[in-house]
Amino acid sequence: MKLTRTFIPTLREVPADAVIASHRLMFRAGMIRKLANGLFAYLPLGLRSLRKLEQIIREEMAAINSQEIKPTVVVPGEVWKESGRWEAMGDAMLRAKNRLGVDLVVSPTAEEAVTALVRDELSSYRQLPLSLYQINSKYRDEIRPRYGVMRGREFIMKDAYSYHTDEECLDKTYRDMGRAYRRVFRRCGLTVIPVQADSGAMGGSGSEEFMVESEIGDNTLLLCKSCDYAANVEKASCKPDFCPPAKPGTPLAIEAVGEEAVSTPVPETIYTPSVKTIEELCDFLKTDAKNFIKTLIYRAVNVELDLSAAPGCASLERRRPAPGAPELYPEAFFAVVIRGDLDVNEVKLAAILKAGELALAADTDVQRLTGAPVGFAGPVGLTGLPIIVDQTVTAMSDAVTGALAKDLHYRHVAYGRDFTGWMLSDIRTVKAGDHCSHCGAELYEKKGNELGHIFKLGYKYTRSMNVSYLDEHGKTRTPTMGSYGIGLDRTLASVIEEHHDGDGIIWPATLSPWHVIIVPIKYDGAVKATADTLEQELEQRGLEVLVDDRDERPGVKFKDADLVGIPFRVVVGDKNLAAAVPTVEIRRRGEGENRLVNTAAAADELAALLEAELAALNA
Amino acid sequence: MKLTRTFIPTLREVPADAVIASHRLMFRAGMIRKLANGLFAYLPLGLRSLRKLEQIIREEMAAINSQEIKPTVVVPGEVWKESGRWEAMGDAMLRAKNRLGVDLVVSPTAEEAVTALVRDELSSYRQLPLSLYQINSKYRDEIRPRYGVMRGREFIMKDAYSYHTDEECLDKTYRDMGRAYRRVFRRCGLTVIPVQADSGAMGGSGSEEFMVESEIGDNTLLLCKSCDYAANVEKASCKPDFCPPAKPGTPLAIEAVGEEAVSTPVPETIYTPSVKTIEELCDFLKTDAKNFIKTLIYRAVNVELDLSAAPGCASLERRRPAPGAPELYPEAFFAVVIRGDLDVNEVKLAAILKAGELALAADTDVQRLTGAPVGFAGPVGLTGLPIIVDQTVTAMSDAVTGALAKDLHYRHVAYGRDFTGWMLSDIRTVKAGDHCSHCGAELYEKKGNELGHIFKLGYKYTRSMNVSYLDEHGKTRTPTMGSYGIGLDRTLASVIEEHHDGDGIIWPATLSPWHVIIVPIKYDGAVKATADTLEQELEQRGLEVLVDDRDERPGVKFKDADLVGIPFRVVVGDKNLAAAVPTVEIRRRGEGENRLVNTAAAADELAALLEAELAALNA
Repeated sequence: MKLTRTFIPTLREVPADAVIASHRLMFRAGMIRKLANGLFAYLPLGLRSLRKLEQIIREEMAAINSQEIKPTVVVPGEVWKESGRWEAMGDAMLRAKNRLGVDLVVSPTAEEAVTALVRDELSSYRQLPLSLYQINSKYRDEIRPRYGVMRGREFIMKDAYSYHTDEECLDKTYRDMGRAYRRVFRRCGLTVIPVQADSGAMGGSGSEEFMVESEIGDNTLLLCKSCDYAANVEKASCKPDFCPPAKPGTPLAIEAVGEEAVSTPVPETIYTPSVKTIEELCDFLKTDAKNFIKTLIYRAVNVELDLSAAPGCASLERRRPAPGAPELYPEAFFAVVIRGDLDVNEVKLAAILKAGELALAADTDVQRLTGAPVGFAGPVGLTGLPIIVDQTVTAMSDAVTGALAKDLHYRHVAYGRDFTGWMLSDIRTVKAGDHCSHCGAELYEKKGNELGHIFKLGYKYTRSMNVSYLDEHGKTRTPTMGSYGIGLDRTLASVIEEHHDGDGIIWPATLSPWHVIIVPIKYDGAVKATADTLEQELEQRGLEVLVDDRDERPGVKFKDADLVGIPFRVVVGDKNLAAAVPTVEIRRRGEGENRLVNTAAAADELAALLEAELAALNA
Repeated sequence: MKLTRTFIPTLREVPADAVIASHRLMFRAGMIRKLANGLFAYLPLGLRSLRKLEQIIREEMAAINSQEIKPTVVVPGEVWKESGRWEAMGDAMLRAKNRLGVDLVVSPTAEEAVTALVRDELSSYRQLPLSLYQINSKYRDEIRPRYGVMRGREFIMKDAYSYHTDEECLDKTYRDMGRAYRRVFRRCGLTVIPVQADSGAMGGSGSEEFMVESEIGDNTLLLCKSCDYAANVEKASCKPDFCPPAKPGTPLAIEAVGEEAVSTPVPETIYTPSVKTIEELCDFLKTDAKNFIKTLIYRAVNVELDLSAAPGCASLERRRPAPGAPELYPEAFFAVVIRGDLDVNEVKLAAILKAGELALAADTDVQRLTGAPVGFAGPVGLTGLPIIVDQTVTAMSDAVTGALAKDLHYRHVAYGRDFTGWMLSDIRTVKAGDHCSHCGAELYEKKGNELGHIFKLGYKYTRSMNVSYLDEHGKTRTPTMGSYGIGLDRTLASVIEEHHDGDGIIWPATLSPWHVIIVPIKYDGAVKATADTLEQELEQRGLEVLVDDRDERPGVKFKDADLVGIPFRVVVGDKNLAAAVPTVEIRRRGEGENRLVNTAAAADELAALLEAELAALNA
């Protein structure tokens, strides 16, 4: 392909809003252009790389027998109402009404649409497992789209959905997907960090995210310095710095809590005027935040957890939003107690409570529920709502906490003797410096961008959307489900983040828009003839070749070649052709040296070099 | 590929709403499923054929140097406002607002989005011509989606846009596109009828539609029995049955109209009580509709034509909807006169007036403008609005027409003597039985579905959206533009309409989801081994093979094979394998005969058969 017949508008300037390398380089190389905030068009160069990424994904999906389908981009709002996500998706979901007033959605993801399709087709266990995927445009109304296609509003996603008769079968597909994702990223030349991830509010039994390290990443990852433990902070656990109780995560049986821990003094009331924050209290009492029990009142929305036996919840409204959907409490309040130096991980908390949304309660609610102004909540004597106890608190036997009255605190408070809770769990936010729950080594943090996510969804969608099949005994059953996504745009951008230098992109051969760029010093005479012949020879060998046939100075051509980052550059010049043995110059982009190669042997050599690189990446 | 590893849910029943063959067969073969009214998902089988069609289009676009890009599906409303189509597109365009209240559009077409991209990149004449295309999802809110993907709401379109320095260059790309489209359809095995089409209200100098004959077609085509003239009724002209004036289509210079045609009697007023329709008037006067001058009052919206010198229009409101956009009259009225036996072609009329919309005026407007109740309009003495004269009227010298007063008509009316008009043009609707304007032979009608449309847009978008470049003299110029679309879904459906029988689809080899289906009578023992070996042999030769490895009766397998329509079926059975020379049965779908072929030679023979078919289609 001759460059003058392509549309590759390279730029010397850097767009003002492009603060990361991939954004700058995708613009400058003419891969993408901006249509509006968060909306990017792929130009021919960018589209060629995107198509190669699609093809890699298709091959890896085929290898694990996931089959490609193509639902529409615009889907009926109705299926979102069935699943209960019509409300839950909030403003991130772009909605429209057609001329008849029917609700439509520009798909942000497709659990609902694909499950609706499967529901209509599924009748027998013989059809399972079934794994379907699409590669299609999605739209999410990002509040602050930025960093180019790394965080756009419309994006291209490979999203797969699998349906199974049992957990074991789901496990197998989940593992297959995990392996396929590792292969996809390896073939792209990407270093990804697979991390344990939150499984979401509504059930789900396993979840893994594929992250790339990024200074602009919107995820915090915790990694172990010693073993291979890695988790999203939303999910991360750590070794407790005390001996934890036996079974966290379940409502507490009161009798199981030691009643005999009575050696510490009973709680004593202390007057703490004008003291509001934990820091002030520490100063006032000359103690450390670790000796405090912090009590936070949360308001949760759409709680799926059964609260019928929870304190203060007997008369709570509970309803089923749609036939087949699980029963929910539209609103419920919880007291959360945790050691004073730690933060509550609200994602963990939401997951435990199976809550749709979660936020700190309003001041008026805190006053109503604790009988005291904000700042004096505490677990001792708190009866009007369920208390969720972080497991760190169970080790505290001489703590300070609010006394449920203005300007009053308790000291010498002991868990088990002075209070228990309704549920005990791990709800702390893990930080760098905490210790690995697997090996005890120190954890450290990285910022990460999520490229892929695999997820055992369980029965959430299949139950709420009434999917069923007949098992081998003729009994009606609900399939269990998994969902698996890769963001193509940000994968491509992340490849550029990992593979570039000051001059431009350095494509891995698997994703390069072309394999070879031939740069004739001047596209004329013997140089032109040699360039054209070499182009033909390479194309005969199956290589994709771009010839820079522009009437530009060599310096301009070299700069553009470096910018667009095609792996192999061949310079064809008069002097080398005129030598006794005519040669051309070959260089691997990103490597310093130019090598002179016999012109007659150049095509074979380039083919061999390319084959070796592709083989290494696709291994 | 083994059938048990695919998802091809074939059906015996016909969906109730599927009234055309392609709709029935795409459902029954498991190619598509319905997500909602007008929204269809492609399942794996359908997607394979769709991808092949995409590939054919990509190859033909590459051959004429059109380059693929990928704008977003969701585009900013802003560009639609710039072009002036934000209002003009009406309810067919799906709009949404994002969380910031910004207007967004789910693309129904992409003249605006692509022109906005080009605007930002274009600086020099050296960059032109530029031809870009995408294959992407589009959405139009069809009032009555039906016939499956033939008339869906979301659909897949290949839309190309080209930009040029001059008309000659646009002509060349337009002709290239026309040839490429003919090749695309030929490679699909489709019989298309290229017809002359309306160039639209807002300029444009040439337009061709690619139609397939269809009983449910929403276009009426007029074709000549003798020459190759073919046109959409919206555009069709015919040989006048009189001698037409020299220059139709331009405002009339009054002095050019013969003033001396005075041999006929002057108009005479006749009393025509209780006579309202032309039929009643014919009875009353014992004459023929051909002797009537029918006068219709039209209300036009957003008229771009300059009316500053037109009767009654001097004080009309005229405004520029956006900077750079052409000036428009938001509302204007016209009297249209035509021979009584003919119908006005409103598409032609709108094109002449450059009107956004057009409809018969309300009764109150008719009364106000003609001074008479509806039914008594006529051109004699009508001065308050411009009169558009169909050229048929110029031959009338003794006609009957309304006398602008209740219950009164004129007779002995002559064009040129008793009235002229502001503009003379061809605005009649051509019908079967009219005569070809090229050769004079009779025209006949067909119903057609539009699969493709190529269109010289001229300066409409480049002017209103302020696109410019510097010519070789450094002067700022506006490029001229073309636009070219193919609907992929309806192309695929039309292939099925043309290639099917009572048993199912009969795929042309170019679009078939697989090339060969191997049907083992029972997938076991020697039959299984032979089927698997043949699959391998065929795949080594580059053929795509599906093996029906299901544990089903042969009849079920044969029925499904016929239904999905894979061109070559190979039946592998015990008896034929046990013969002295083992054979398999080969049949071309759609042809009756089974042929026994030496098993060892089957792969070569099938490869040769396929190659011959592909070569014939791709020739």
